[in-house]
Amino acid sequence: MHPWAEWNHVVKLDPDKTLVDGESFEAVASSGTDAIAIGGTTGMTEEKMARVVEACGRYDVPVYIEPSHLGAVYHSEAHDGYLVPVVFNAGDPTWITGAHKEWARLDGEIDWSRTYPEAYVVLNEDSSVAEYTQANCNLDPDEVAAYATVAERMFAQPILYVEYSGTLGDPAVVEAAADAVESASVFYGGGIHDYDSAHTMAAYADVVVVGDLVHDEGVEALRETVRGANEA
Amino acid sequence: MHPWAEWNHVVKLDPDKTLVDGESFEAVASSGTDAIAIGGTTGMTEEKMARVVEACGRYDVPVYIEPSHLGAVYHSEAHDGYLVPVVFNAGDPTWITGAHKEWARLDGEIDWSRTYPEAYVVLNEDSSVAEYTQANCNLDPDEVAAYATVAERMFAQPILYVEYSGTLGDPAVVEAAADAVESASVFYGGGIHDYDSAHTMAAYADVVVVGDLVHDEGVEALRETVRGANEA
Repeated sequence: MHPWAEWNHVVKLDPDKTLVDGESFEAVASSGTDAIAIGGTTGMTEEKMARVVEACGRYDVPVYIEPSHLGAVYHSEAHDGYLVPVVFNAGDPTWITGAHKEWARLDGEIDWSRTYPEAYVVLNEDSSVAEYTQANCNLDPDEVAAYATVAERMFAQPILYVEYSGTLGDPAVVEAAADAVESASVFYGGGIHDYDSAHTMAAYADVVVVGDLVHDEGVEALRETVRGANEA
Repeated sequence: MHPWAEWNHVVKLDPDKTLVDGESFEAVASSGTDAIAIGGTTGMTEEKMARVVEACGRYDVPVYIEPSHLGAVYHSEAHDGYLVPVVFNAGDPTWITGAHKEWARLDGEIDWSRTYPEAYVVLNEDSSVAEYTQANCNLDPDEVAAYATVAERMFAQPILYVEYSGTLGDPAVVEAAADAVESASVFYGGGIHDYDSAHTMAAYADVVVVGDLVHDEGVEALRETVRGANEA
């Protein structure tokens, strides 16, 4: 069984951003979320990554690094492994196979038994991740479903990640992705900001990922999204 | 067990090319090769594909279609399935995930139980496949090995295909790829033209693929490569 089999909700922390004044990593870890993923697209260094990993690793909740590039890789006993994005609709193959090849070549310490790929489909053309990966975001639900099928059938991807980073996406797209996969888990990320948005996306996605909210609004708002995800 | 588990040698027929005068598909099928793969990079149509598939499908040897694009897909009882190239070092993501997404979207008849991906690393920069896919062919053996590791570990690819299309490659690169994989089978293609070239590459590759030779020199030359592959 994969570590995320029982997850409904994940917090994604960006080491380049701060928590809300007066709040702690302990409060985030005890928000009711099922896991903490640590990653970000820009401004990442191993030092920033290490600080957040070590802080979060003290609590009971599983901690995963989501490396965007080699500078975001940080080996430590304080985390449970890596969730590695593969952007299936990237325009630049660096984000499908290229960066991964460089990681395999330059890092002699990869523990593959706790390294899991995530098949991303990036859908908000205004997001930094879309710009960075030159993603083709102009996709109909059936095209997203086809990427999901290919990710599962031809590339044995255990996670299909519908990513609307920065904006709440179209539930019909998440539904199409969920209908297309058989055993892969569907993660949804983007614009989750309250009970309702979490509840809506969790109707189709196995796991709802909440990112900016924790940095912008804080743990009380986060708890509402946990409740929305769990009650879907 | 995968169909190719016991294969040493594959003939690749290009439906856009002819056999040597006076030779037949029956002679190719009874050359001692373990399988016939049918595919080509340019000039492919479903009609050309159908003609060669139906001709080869009458004999005992397994027949697989290797579709380069949707026009090369041909559903029939005369073949055993599809070996689908995924070009891990392509510069254009169409050849990693894009064409595959279109196939999954537009073809309602895909039988995934007999559809297998092949993780290609394309290494002859002068070949049409390199030009077509905008492959980055300037790779050291350790980079090819890293692609092999990623193909197996992150994408569960059952075949790692070292492709020197049109020229005999560097055995050290094939060895590096073979050393990098654990359970994936290594296919080698490019420039196999006699006993020695087949024997050399089969020392490292599980399967040696012979293409142009059968169109240019004929079945007698082909038999020599079968012998070279089997005696390695």
